[in-house]
Amino acid sequence: MNAYRWEDYVRRVEPYVPGEQPSDENIIKLNTNENPYGVSERVKSIARELDYDMLRKYPDPKADMLVSAISDYYGVAKDEVFVGVGSDDVLAMCFMTFFGSGRRILFPDITYSFYPVWARLLGIPFEEVPLREDYTISPEDYGVENGGIVIPNPNAPTGILLARDQIESILINNQNSIVIIDEAYIDFAGAGASVIDMINKYSNLIVVRTFSKSRSMAGIRIGYAISNNRIIKYLNDVKYSYNSYTMNYPSIILGAEAIRDEAYFRDVTEKIVKTREEFTDRLAHLGYKVLPSAANFVFASPGDGTAREIFEAARNDGIYFRYFDSPGIDDYLRITIGLPEDMDKVIKFLTIHKSIVK
Amino acid sequence: MNAYRWEDYVRRVEPYVPGEQPSDENIIKLNTNENPYGVSERVKSIARELDYDMLRKYPDPKADMLVSAISDYYGVAKDEVFVGVGSDDVLAMCFMTFFGSGRRILFPDITYSFYPVWARLLGIPFEEVPLREDYTISPEDYGVENGGIVIPNPNAPTGILLARDQIESILINNQNSIVIIDEAYIDFAGAGASVIDMINKYSNLIVVRTFSKSRSMAGIRIGYAISNNRIIKYLNDVKYSYNSYTMNYPSIILGAEAIRDEAYFRDVTEKIVKTREEFTDRLAHLGYKVLPSAANFVFASPGDGTAREIFEAARNDGIYFRYFDSPGIDDYLRITIGLPEDMDKVIKFLTIHKSIVK
Repeated sequence: MNAYRWEDYVRRVEPYVPGEQPSDENIIKLNTNENPYGVSERVKSIARELDYDMLRKYPDPKADMLVSAISDYYGVAKDEVFVGVGSDDVLAMCFMTFFGSGRRILFPDITYSFYPVWARLLGIPFEEVPLREDYTISPEDYGVENGGIVIPNPNAPTGILLARDQIESILINNQNSIVIIDEAYIDFAGAGASVIDMINKYSNLIVVRTFSKSRSMAGIRIGYAISNNRIIKYLNDVKYSYNSYTMNYPSIILGAEAIRDEAYFRDVTEKIVKTREEFTDRLAHLGYKVLPSAANFVFASPGDGTAREIFEAARNDGIYFRYFDSPGIDDYLRITIGLPEDMDKVIKFLTIHKSIVK
Repeated sequence: MNAYRWEDYVRRVEPYVPGEQPSDENIIKLNTNENPYGVSERVKSIARELDYDMLRKYPDPKADMLVSAISDYYGVAKDEVFVGVGSDDVLAMCFMTFFGSGRRILFPDITYSFYPVWARLLGIPFEEVPLREDYTISPEDYGVENGGIVIPNPNAPTGILLARDQIESILINNQNSIVIIDEAYIDFAGAGASVIDMINKYSNLIVVRTFSKSRSMAGIRIGYAISNNRIIKYLNDVKYSYNSYTMNYPSIILGAEAIRDEAYFRDVTEKIVKTREEFTDRLAHLGYKVLPSAANFVFASPGDGTAREIFEAARNDGIYFRYFDSPGIDDYLRITIGLPEDMDKVIKFLTIHKSIVK
């Protein structure tokens, strides 16, 4: 019999808490940055015609059809693409593969709240680098010694985009460490914002993307990394030591078709950007401070300390925003851009709420 | 600039090598223990009617519909069920959550070859406990101090079942460490072989299952663990610190329906067991030594050192077996039980091959 108890050695963690997923269809759900538009007709038609008897077999462990579609789309080689179960899986794999030096990794203090969770889970020391007062990232602050860097661009929950030359300065100043640029929301930032084209200029760069936002497919769980083939091989080696078959058969087929349907993607993305700009103006007109967003959400503050109260009142009215009770952002609401009619209802709610409170 | 290079700290691993997944439909694929029967008509019909616009939303992070179907099926509580992306994901999570004591974990020396891969990936010391000469597991050998135990039942690639009282003796002798019973193939072992009913008798027991074998759904990637609610909570905490949304929308819906279609499951499982018994007799008649299998494959030896040669000749003929070039089993072939007509072709091939070689 053992002289210890297993419970003394459990890996104990404080898990990430995702935004609520209410099942009530009547809720206007603007809390998890999902796409308000469904998947394309091309994807639906492929889904209905799938040969489901294929499910008896293991899926292609290389997910070649999906990897090929992504590589064709970006004009990169197949061995420059890594796919996983959402960008969370891809990011977790990156942390596990590259952040074992014992040195602290750096990411912004106000950012995607899963980064510190992965660091804690895997025992990786980290430092949260403060944003500037205007909520922008200061590239110079990433010049200190580190064991890796993670920058979301646009950042979340601020929505603020860092210009390419600013990203490039971080890459240049950190050529000995891995720099992950998490471009989950970049498709809403306009042409030329991504740094995918830099993967062969900077051998330390990993760009991470997701199908959950601009591709309307949060429910299928696909994320990917684009980097040079050496980095992708390291990632795949760890992935194949963890789970050989992560991408299921429907994901591979439907994901590939979604990438190929460029017309639908462009149409949906343009609509969301247009709605975002209109909504931003209307919010400003209501007296809100709205950070300049390059994403499919806005981060906005009533400016009078009532954000939490508005968040709760909206929730009671069936409108879900995201609220973070954290220093520096506790008077802000993160509001996903939904359909134009959703945003009309939000403005109506905020207007009425304001008049009642005043 | 950093004084080190990131490449010095990459987690370097020797990845698991899964069985080949040839895309040629004419190949008789008996190398990865897939189910030769497709998914049930009930599952196909649900799949065709899915509301694919739901894909725009994140899936339920708790995968409640799937967890409920599994809990109803086994008569356990929902908080006694953990689900993951195939049993590989579930097992990897168990290793990550429970095997951090620094003590060596124990598993058989001839077994699922992913166990040592996870141990190496996560820096867990391990000891491979030799099987007896007849390829059975010796429960007494698991009485030494350890940091955890993993026993597949039936074992792979041998197919040999360990009786419930033998498993129970391992549980009794190791009440201070976690014991994982990997029941990937147990549905082919007949009624009463599983130890799921012991999860509340032994607080250190985790039973792991998969949809990839008896449920004809290797392509959907679902595995699950059944244990007491304390262990399941620890697992979920780590899971939610790694990836909140692992089970995609099609997996949750189709997986739940597969569990509910008991009639189809029983029919398919019975057919495979019948084919296995017939095939075993025919192999023995051909002079093969066949280990007694309680799984959907047989582990058989020609007994004259020609296993590798037969493996290669069969492959050239479009019949894929699995061959392990490892001490003690290098004159064996692992042959998945396919359709009766597949096994007829295998017997025909082996008969002709034997007559040519002689």
